[in-house]
Amino acid sequence: MPTLIRGGTIIDADRTYRADVLCADPQAGGTILAIGTDIETPSDTKTIDAGGQYIMPGGIDPHTHMELPFMGTTASDDFYTGTAAGLSGGTTSIIDFVIPSPKQPLMDAFKAWRGWAEKASSDYGFHVAVTWWDESVHRDMGLLVHEHGVSSFKHFMAYKNAIMADDEVLVNSFTRSLELGALPTVHAENGELVFQLQKQLLAKGFTGPEAHPLSRPPEVEGEAANRAIRIAQVLGVPIYIVHVSAKDAVDVIAKARNDGLRVFGEVLPGHLVIDESVYRDPDWTRAAAHVMSPPFRTSEHREALWRGLQSGQLHTTATDHCVFCASQKAMGREDFTRIPNGCGGVEDRMSVLWHHGVNMGRLTPNEFVRVTSTNAAQIFNLYPRKGAVQVGADADLVVWDPDATRTISVKTHHQKVDFNVFEGMTVQGVATHTLTRGALAWANGDLRAERGAGQYLKRPPNASYFEAARVANKLKEPHPVNRAESA
Amino acid sequence: MPTLIRGGTIIDADRTYRADVLCADPQAGGTILAIGTDIETPSDTKTIDAGGQYIMPGGIDPHTHMELPFMGTTASDDFYTGTAAGLSGGTTSIIDFVIPSPKQPLMDAFKAWRGWAEKASSDYGFHVAVTWWDESVHRDMGLLVHEHGVSSFKHFMAYKNAIMADDEVLVNSFTRSLELGALPTVHAENGELVFQLQKQLLAKGFTGPEAHPLSRPPEVEGEAANRAIRIAQVLGVPIYIVHVSAKDAVDVIAKARNDGLRVFGEVLPGHLVIDESVYRDPDWTRAAAHVMSPPFRTSEHREALWRGLQSGQLHTTATDHCVFCASQKAMGREDFTRIPNGCGGVEDRMSVLWHHGVNMGRLTPNEFVRVTSTNAAQIFNLYPRKGAVQVGADADLVVWDPDATRTISVKTHHQKVDFNVFEGMTVQGVATHTLTRGALAWANGDLRAERGAGQYLKRPPNASYFEAARVANKLKEPHPVNRAESA
Amino acid sequence: MPTLIRGGTIIDADRTYRADVLCADPQAGGTILAIGTDIETPSDTKTIDAGGQYIMPGGIDPHTHMELPFMGTTASDDFYTGTAAGLSGGTTSIIDFVIPSPKQPLMDAFKAWRGWAEKASSDYGFHVAVTWWDESVHRDMGLLVHEHGVSSFKHFMAYKNAIMADDEVLVNSFTRSLELGALPTVHAENGELVFQLQKQLLAKGFTGPEAHPLSRPPEVEGEAANRAIRIAQVLGVPIYIVHVSAKDAVDVIAKARNDGLRVFGEVLPGHLVIDESVYRDPDWTRAAAHVMSPPFRTSEHREALWRGLQSGQLHTTATDHCVFCASQKAMGREDFTRIPNGCGGVEDRMSVLWHHGVNMGRLTPNEFVRVTSTNAAQIFNLYPRKGAVQVGADADLVVWDPDATRTISVKTHHQKVDFNVFEGMTVQGVATHTLTRGALAWANGDLRAERGAGQYLKRPPNASYFEAARVANKLKEPHPVNRAESA
Amino acid sequence: MPTLIRGGTIIDADRTYRADVLCADPQAGGTILAIGTDIETPSDTKTIDAGGQYIMPGGIDPHTHMELPFMGTTASDDFYTGTAAGLSGGTTSIIDFVIPSPKQPLMDAFKAWRGWAEKASSDYGFHVAVTWWDESVHRDMGLLVHEHGVSSFKHFMAYKNAIMADDEVLVNSFTRSLELGALPTVHAENGELVFQLQKQLLAKGFTGPEAHPLSRPPEVEGEAANRAIRIAQVLGVPIYIVHVSAKDAVDVIAKARNDGLRVFGEVLPGHLVIDESVYRDPDWTRAAAHVMSPPFRTSEHREALWRGLQSGQLHTTATDHCVFCASQKAMGREDFTRIPNGCGGVEDRMSVLWHHGVNMGRLTPNEFVRVTSTNAAQIFNLYPRKGAVQVGADADLVVWDPDATRTISVKTHHQKVDFNVFEGMTVQGVATHTLTRGALAWANGDLRAERGAGQYLKRPPNASYFEAARVANKLKEPHPVNRAESA
Repeated sequence: MPTLIRGGTIIDADRTYRADVLCADPQAGGTILAIGTDIETPSDTKTIDAGGQYIMPGGIDPHTHMELPFMGTTASDDFYTGTAAGLSGGTTSIIDFVIPSPKQPLMDAFKAWRGWAEKASSDYGFHVAVTWWDESVHRDMGLLVHEHGVSSFKHFMAYKNAIMADDEVLVNSFTRSLELGALPTVHAENGELVFQLQKQLLAKGFTGPEAHPLSRPPEVEGEAANRAIRIAQVLGVPIYIVHVSAKDAVDVIAKARNDGLRVFGEVLPGHLVIDESVYRDPDWTRAAAHVMSPPFRTSEHREALWRGLQSGQLHTTATDHCVFCASQKAMGREDFTRIPNGCGGVEDRMSVLWHHGVNMGRLTPNEFVRVTSTNAAQIFNLYPRKGAVQVGADADLVVWDPDATRTISVKTHHQKVDFNVFEGMTVQGVATHTLTRGALAWANGDLRAERGAGQYLKRPPNASYFEAARVANKLKEPHPVNRAESA
Repeated sequence: MPTLIRGGTIIDADRTYRADVLCADPQAGGTILAIGTDIETPSDTKTIDAGGQYIMPGGIDPHTHMELPFMGTTASDDFYTGTAAGLSGGTTSIIDFVIPSPKQPLMDAFKAWRGWAEKASSDYGFHVAVTWWDESVHRDMGLLVHEHGVSSFKHFMAYKNAIMADDEVLVNSFTRSLELGALPTVHAENGELVFQLQKQLLAKGFTGPEAHPLSRPPEVEGEAANRAIRIAQVLGVPIYIVHVSAKDAVDVIAKARNDGLRVFGEVLPGHLVIDESVYRDPDWTRAAAHVMSPPFRTSEHREALWRGLQSGQLHTTATDHCVFCASQKAMGREDFTRIPNGCGGVEDRMSVLWHHGVNMGRLTPNEFVRVTSTNAAQIFNLYPRKGAVQVGADADLVVWDPDATRTISVKTHHQKVDFNVFEGMTVQGVATHTLTRGALAWANGDLRAERGAGQYLKRPPNASYFEAARVANKLKEPHPVNRAESA
Repeated sequence: MPTLIRGGTIIDADRTYRADVLCADPQAGGTILAIGTDIETPSDTKTIDAGGQYIMPGGIDPHTHMELPFMGTTASDDFYTGTAAGLSGGTTSIIDFVIPSPKQPLMDAFKAWRGWAEKASSDYGFHVAVTWWDESVHRDMGLLVHEHGVSSFKHFMAYKNAIMADDEVLVNSFTRSLELGALPTVHAENGELVFQLQKQLLAKGFTGPEAHPLSRPPEVEGEAANRAIRIAQVLGVPIYIVHVSAKDAVDVIAKARNDGLRVFGEVLPGHLVIDESVYRDPDWTRAAAHVMSPPFRTSEHREALWRGLQSGQLHTTATDHCVFCASQKAMGREDFTRIPNGCGGVEDRMSVLWHHGVNMGRLTPNEFVRVTSTNAAQIFNLYPRKGAVQVGADADLVVWDPDATRTISVKTHHQKVDFNVFEGMTVQGVATHTLTRGALAWANGDLRAERGAGQYLKRPPNASYFEAARVANKLKEPHPVNRAESA
Repeated sequence: MPTLIRGGTIIDADRTYRADVLCADPQAGGTILAIGTDIETPSDTKTIDAGGQYIMPGGIDPHTHMELPFMGTTASDDFYTGTAAGLSGGTTSIIDFVIPSPKQPLMDAFKAWRGWAEKASSDYGFHVAVTWWDESVHRDMGLLVHEHGVSSFKHFMAYKNAIMADDEVLVNSFTRSLELGALPTVHAENGELVFQLQKQLLAKGFTGPEAHPLSRPPEVEGEAANRAIRIAQVLGVPIYIVHVSAKDAVDVIAKARNDGLRVFGEVLPGHLVIDESVYRDPDWTRAAAHVMSPPFRTSEHREALWRGLQSGQLHTTATDHCVFCASQKAMGREDFTRIPNGCGGVEDRMSVLWHHGVNMGRLTPNEFVRVTSTNAAQIFNLYPRKGAVQVGADADLVVWDPDATRTISVKTHHQKVDFNVFEGMTVQGVATHTLTRGALAWANGDLRAERGAGQYLKRPPNASYFEAARVANKLKEPHPVNRAESA
């Protein structure tokens, strides 16, 4: 059945205006059929009353880890529960990560993840991590881009002795990415420093979660961000930094962009609003529940992240959604380095951003749309199928009540985990309805997410910024010296 | 008659796609009626073949001075010839400046300019300069905003003993602008320093155009930009810096934006491509023809401007089109301070930007659209009537041949002046057709601009960024101290 | 009688070493006669035991206002009591300010201040403020430099409608200073903004001291510092910024220095350690006692000041000692803008710096000497007569016990004022003995300062940095264009 | 025989004054016995007339590679010829480098170098490179510091597959350096990027010296400098960056210093005055003669280096003196990566710095002394034995004629190599006499350097800045959380 969203105000990345939106039946493609104030609707159309509300592109969360096998356990939200929770908060697409073990063929890992993800209830894509290097990796990167719709690769600069990519892997993989028109992304933390600091802290008897942020200070992140960006600069390839949490990294990104580089930065709501003091919570379980990397930081850093979003130096918001229950976190009770890293948020991102961004005068509603949806769609080449309220786009839409409030709590959330880092936060600005390709998946508190309804998103390479990078690289090619042999 | 542009590729600020565009007859509103690949067209539709070409929003030049009375003479392009020249180059709207003399009532000046502009052949709006201060200025600013569609005010920080606004004027006018939701803009040069340097140079016997850049070094611009921005910051009002020419000012803007401020920057094609050595041309007339303020600068500065456009720290391109013929420039033959300041470019901006921007890998085509049209429309609140290829928008469109070349010359240009600062530059990327509200004004070299066809653009106040500024200001309000009387 | 300081460790700006110091009798010049480990001493030599202690150059406080007539009253410490308090804390020289009223001849003001200062108990010099401009000011600046040993001029960018120097005064006075080889110094706050903010705050009903910092936010200081520095840059003259209190100004200075400019910065101990929350003290009298300009600020700013001292971007520490008793401060009970501005510290600077600097690992002891004495002597051209423990230098020395502690309090201080902004602070690192030109003025708690013993310090122009500035300016002179007349 | 230098003006780091200097006979210690204007001299005193000339501390070159075995050959200046050349130019001390091969015990390498250096004619010390890591390296570092007077260690971040230190080596060695109070120094270039760029350039057919700078662009240096500095920051250890050549690195150092870090930077005269265009010299031999790492760069970078010296963000000047004759350079005729890296300058540094620094208004004479001598002595803990004209210091002195000129040429230089990168440069400011520990080694063109007269300089650990670092580190130690067991 088609759906008409009536009476709302559309907020797109570039403007705000009064119009209704007619969405095709999911079986008939689920795209947006018409936008206007006097749309003719078929007789069997379902109507959603959006009076006094906003209609926005559904959120895109470009950084999740559903059912990730990590640190000896598996993230508790799977692709079904995780995407369903996302839909309840207004997020209609995720981009998750395929993470091959060292020496594991990329295609093997990719196939495993594709299988796991079939139960997803919203659309999803994949970045693939490059955690090691040989000729087969070079070849599989090509296969993934050309045949499987993967157009971004991930590199972990942390996690020494596990999935850490050293400079040799970075240089090779970035070079290959440029050839393929795929975007390299990095988790920026200097893994060697983290490793040494962990050793030192444990040696001094600091075994609890309070040692976690001390083992990953802001400089560790700033250094790695700078290294990755400058490597990308030398090779002439655009780059994307995931979960920027430290002022150090924001400064590095801003400087690079002011140098003319194509650098993109992502930020998580947790890093925008949660203070590092959580790691000193007297309750070990609460403290451990906040262990993720990079860690939460002081207000100086949070302020820098907000400014980065405002000024356009940071571009996307994601969640790094990767949840572990208390029993899983307890694996690290004697040794903080063994606490499974990860926190949630796929359900809460949109509301937290709206409340602390729009309601605080930090972001305009249009900027909110950009950093929750449009920019991600453009950077990861899903636009305008995703990321815009436009005729022909997928009807991935959220109806947003700017006056409604909600108190975030583990008691009411849909995420499959027994903790919520935003517990008790009352946010104003709530998704009342969410449509995924025309299907109503969330309506006034009723979650109707359908297991397996999500489609895999093939993302073509060569997003628009690559063309400019290629022209610029071409113009920088060296030219030979005419050199008569010297005697 | 409606017009169908067929076979082209639309480049908008956010994407590039194949589609035809149907434009209403100018008499019937001249808006875009339909965009698609299978548009049904009325029988009497005129067709433009855009095969292999791009269709883009017509350029907006937010900084022109047609027929400006200045330094004892009047700029030689009037509103008709100037806007016609713009149309031939793909520019379909200008925003010109009303500049009251000190003590002249703002409304008097506004009416004079409105009268002069009636002959314009493309649409036009006005910024109004605040060159002095009293209660009547405060009141007239309100009138202009509420009743006359003026939503931006200009301030000259240079031109001492003439139209220079000192800190007192700036602080008062910025305060009033914030109340009104109007955007303050500044010409950023420290007028006191310019005045003293001019005196010193003349005293040392430097009377020719080579002294012009020496009297306005980059620091003079950087200082004023910083002063204006920090005043705006303290008052909590967004701000726009016109014709940024120096790295010093770009750095200041970037820093302010990274501090979270709403600062916008404008750049002229001349500052992007012309070297300051022109002022040392042995031919006085040629040298004098380049006299404008701020002056052209060294490559270090040009590079910084390009980087500013790339990184999104600078937002718009304009021309400061203000042309004087050789006989007018000759007024300053014995004294460079009396050479009428101004150069042209309203016709050449789009091609120069495309050639040196897109063809050099500095800008993507979408970014080109942003900096030549969309951003200006959004900042000055004309969007989406202007600045986008969207159904319902004015059919202000340019058909662009990216393969065609043109050699810019005073011999062939349409600007009413006997010099062109881009003389001899061969650019690739040329407007083949320009439509203004649906009327074909330029077609393959045939200029059909109609005298008086342009409409005055009323621009409402409170562009979207004002709302966020207001919320932020509200949250920063001081709160009282509970103070029992101390003994 | 000569004095031998025995058993101590000398800390100079460049090194630390064990040696004794023999000082001539004050009547015999009071210079340092010998430094060594086996000094032959005359039979009638007095001995000070410095075992386990440090011997350092006496502090130079380059920014004091003794008995200043200001805001309708007069600072309560006069030249005698103020310099005596300084001696008790290890400070042996001050540079005070002659501040002519607008239109008052500079020489008249200079003579008045010279008279008041005759009672000083330690050596003293003068900066002279340029608060207005005409030819007589130009002439008197020359007289002061050539005949009266004044080689630095002060400019207030704040205090509108009183002593504020606008850009015209700044440009003229800086130009004249360069000619004379005298150093321009500025109080950097944008007076127009302060004026408007004061008006706005009063209009909103904020009449108490809590409004004081709100009327002078950090941006106001950063703006003015940048303006003054860029004016100096354009004119090619070195410059000194007094009482830098805001990160904004530190950043501006650092950037300018990285641009190659000769910029010096001064910081006050109060700005290094006191938080702006003092203005919200529920006790009006306490809050008002902290009113000075620029105001105390948040920790972000304090941290930036420390970093500036560490990195060598800030050079001197001073006090802006200008004290008013509670009854004087009460003049502003109904209107914070009428509270006499000023706090004390001439007695406490050295200890506060040592405790929070050296004891916290921020400064080495040698760096402490630089920022409390040597740098001021070099910048203001008193070196090596002052600022170094060297044979031939004035025996202005402090014997310093790094293990002793002292709790600062109005009850025990020697400053003639009923409040101390450091009240209750326990510092480790205390002056046990102070010598002024060989005379013991402070010994283990016994203050023997002699009224009128201080000498006026003539400071010659053209400190070493001026020579480099002149050569650089010379090389930047413009050269003419060979221009055949164009037809 | 003692020597009296008469009639000159002493320039020290902190001041300039007229005085004579009496130096002890070399056999009697060779120290400075007296400084004054009326020195009593023994009857057998030799006199040097320094009328109209300056007397300065002899230059310290903290970065040389005499007779270095490198890239399959050996540098042509040995410790005798190299130090003799230094003396002829006014340099009286060098600090050379012991560079163990990977897996070679540090002590073995140290002993080899000590043996080679015995023929030196001026005093010398050693830095020791840490090129690999195991427990023996940890132990030998201790030995070197405690028993052999080595208090600085070197790390090459370039030269992959040879002596490159990866992050693991850096972190371990920096940690150990901090324990020992020894200063870590780094050659900052990202070796992985250099390796890949070399491969790519060779693959494209670029085999000549013009490819050398392309394989080591400025970003490669900036990245590595930032990485090393941030690692040092996290570990809390001061750090020294050798041969800073790129603006990128200067910016990184300035930012770090403004963050409060103890970072020192060194610059070479070649990087200050030579343009990268030399690598495109049509004569292969000339081009190859300039091959060193980092390479010479564009004017933008040179300007940044000068500004760094001026502002105090860079501290020392050195030469990286490491010369190879044309026949040696020819090893890389078919492959630029095999050209032995290195250029000369130990003889020319002082004059080039004076001419382009002091004569151009960039440095005062006092600053010249700082950056050629005093700062190196203080940073590497040789002060005040070296680096100052003070009684008791070694009489390492240079008599400097600021009016004399000299044209640098391979035909007249004393360096044992057939090329000079400053060939043909006429400098004003020349050493007329050089004394090394009281012995006259250079007098008006007569080089009297004595083989083997140089002494090995033991440099103690824990230079003054270490104490402050230790206090600061101590204050940053984490403190435990009081955590009752959670259920």
